[in-house]
Amino acid sequence: MNKRSRFMISLAAVLMLAFALGLTGHSYGQKERRFKLVVHGGAGTILKSRMTPEREAAYRAALTEALQSGHAVLKNGGSSLDAIEATIKVLEDSPLFNAGKGAVFTSEGTNELDASVMDGATLKAGAVAGVKRIKNPISLARLVMEKSPHVMMVGEGAEIFARQNGIEWIDPKYFYTEERYKQLEEAKRKEKQQTEPASKPDPGKSGPGKPDSAKPDRKTGSETTDDKKFGTVGAVALDRNGNLAAGTSTGGMTNKKFGRVGDAPIIGAGTYANNQTCAVSATGHGEYFIRSVVAHDISALMEYRGLSLKEAADLVVMNKLVKLGGEGGIIAIDKDGNIAMPFNSAGMYRGFIDAGGKVVVEIFKD
Amino acid sequence: MNKRSRFMISLAAVLMLAFALGLTGHSYGQKERRFKLVVHGGAGTILKSRMTPEREAAYRAALTEALQSGHAVLKNGGSSLDAIEATIKVLEDSPLFNAGKGAVFTSEGTNELDASVMDGATLKAGAVAGVKRIKNPISLARLVMEKSPHVMMVGEGAEIFARQNGIEWIDPKYFYTEERYKQLEEAKRKEKQQTEPASKPDPGKSGPGKPDSAKPDRKTGSETTDDKKFGTVGAVALDRNGNLAAGTSTGGMTNKKFGRVGDAPIIGAGTYANNQTCAVSATGHGEYFIRSVVAHDISALMEYRGLSLKEAADLVVMNKLVKLGGEGGIIAIDKDGNIAMPFNSAGMYRGFIDAGGKVVVEIFKD
Repeated sequence: MNKRSRFMISLAAVLMLAFALGLTGHSYGQKERRFKLVVHGGAGTILKSRMTPEREAAYRAALTEALQSGHAVLKNGGSSLDAIEATIKVLEDSPLFNAGKGAVFTSEGTNELDASVMDGATLKAGAVAGVKRIKNPISLARLVMEKSPHVMMVGEGAEIFARQNGIEWIDPKYFYTEERYKQLEEAKRKEKQQTEPASKPDPGKSGPGKPDSAKPDRKTGSETTDDKKFGTVGAVALDRNGNLAAGTSTGGMTNKKFGRVGDAPIIGAGTYANNQTCAVSATGHGEYFIRSVVAHDISALMEYRGLSLKEAADLVVMNKLVKLGGEGGIIAIDKDGNIAMPFNSAGMYRGFIDAGGKVVVEIFKD
Repeated sequence: MNKRSRFMISLAAVLMLAFALGLTGHSYGQKERRFKLVVHGGAGTILKSRMTPEREAAYRAALTEALQSGHAVLKNGGSSLDAIEATIKVLEDSPLFNAGKGAVFTSEGTNELDASVMDGATLKAGAVAGVKRIKNPISLARLVMEKSPHVMMVGEGAEIFARQNGIEWIDPKYFYTEERYKQLEEAKRKEKQQTEPASKPDPGKSGPGKPDSAKPDRKTGSETTDDKKFGTVGAVALDRNGNLAAGTSTGGMTNKKFGRVGDAPIIGAGTYANNQTCAVSATGHGEYFIRSVVAHDISALMEYRGLSLKEAADLVVMNKLVKLGGEGGIIAIDKDGNIAMPFNSAGMYRGFIDAGGKVVVEIFKD
């Protein structure tokens, strides 16, 4: 082999290596953003003392699976939008979280689901509220964003749009879970007690030898309405191209009346993403989050006051919301991949996964 | 009369005078805020060339009546919340505006109304979307704020809450107006033409001698779907106590499908009030206003970047919204009584009334 051939072969090898590294996404240039994904599965009175090891393990496994689903998308060069959708679908399909399959029951014994999504690159957004026949509301919210001129659709209209665009309706019975239905029955029983304070306790229900279902059931670890628990799931992500996205999905409140809508489908309150600042998904007592325009406020504090993501998120969640009386938390990621997961409640199901695939999942304080 | 009697009579006179001045609201102290009220009746392609003098006079009279209703409240020491509700009810009861009585028709031939209200003193808020049997949605939004733990209710649930709290349902036929129904028929005809581009024109409808209903009807001054017109009404006010309030009400979009909800019932987008900054009500292409979180963004620019109301409102409406492609405008008032009414469309029905009762009403540019 002569000198020229050796040079040509070496050059080809270098080019092939560069090409291969580029294709598999392993770029070592400074321009490559570190992609990252953050998830939450609701906040509230989540106490270690009331959690069985089995139940805690189940939550950790579901959050880890959700994070890894989104990570697989980002690792393969997928968008932050694809990643948060994949992540949230895993949580919607789990009975553990108050979204999708595990949605709580309304006062009428139905399940009404809300979700929203926002694309930080374009500021496009989609949201649905009060849908009853859609398995994955997060995907419908995205469809509203991408296949309609609208941002928000509610009720049966949103379902008709779904079917016209290839999303099959499911039997609402899909959302029946025994635990959630018991929560509804318990909530109704308590409501009755409150409106009839003088009535005697029903011996058939709380007599000797029968468990008092108003107390947290330590054995099964089921949540009761004693616990303020704001079940919502959400994800935020930064992809390789520096694009941010946020999404949130919820089954609302147990024993919900009057077509109440919380912050999950409200752009600016429960969900916001803007490549100039950050992506945010919230979980908590939705009314306070709407009044505080929580997600947009964090973005505005970064953009207009120059706060870091952590400073902005802490100010809104640990100070402003607390002063107003609003319980809950948020997850957020900024354009540089910094993350924040502040909450002012006892606990918040949360976690993140970095570019290398390292997973961190946390539930309680500290 | 002795010296002592004269003194007592003089003292009594002074006290009576002070009492009388206090009662009638004529305070001359520096602490008294100058109360003020601003109103809008929608923005869009509102051109002088298409407006008959009669129609223009009708709009001016309705806006003036609305302003004077709110002014009467403020003058008598009423709250900004009472004032904006009184103002908006006048516009909801008028067939001229796309809210309440004059609501446009959905694709299904129904009228679905949205409204929201926010109290700048407490950051409390109320909103309803998709109600069909409520004469004054602005009052229902306020009821949600004041008589429920919720911020937002949609559809029939909101109507049930209304009836349980003393708001009677009305026959949906109340919302029928010939002009709005013609707009729906025209929108459907155009939609059909667009989906059947090869079809021949219907000689029965646009043949010789028959008016082409696609053209604006100069004679009656009726709006056509050629005009992008974002019918919404809203009001913002500052009362004697320095409290700000904002409210917005709409009948949505002609030929609306899929339970679409615009920005009017979205706190932070169509409506926002905060005593620390300003009160804002928006009107325009709702999707862009949601994505831009318009009303809260103006407040945030004042609070976090120190902009004046005018600077903040102009930046959001004339710059940020324009870049995104969002057409419309806003009205706003700050805690010192400064007002702003920017719009990037051809026209916006708008006006204000000052403490002395001076009314200014404008429709077109300049």
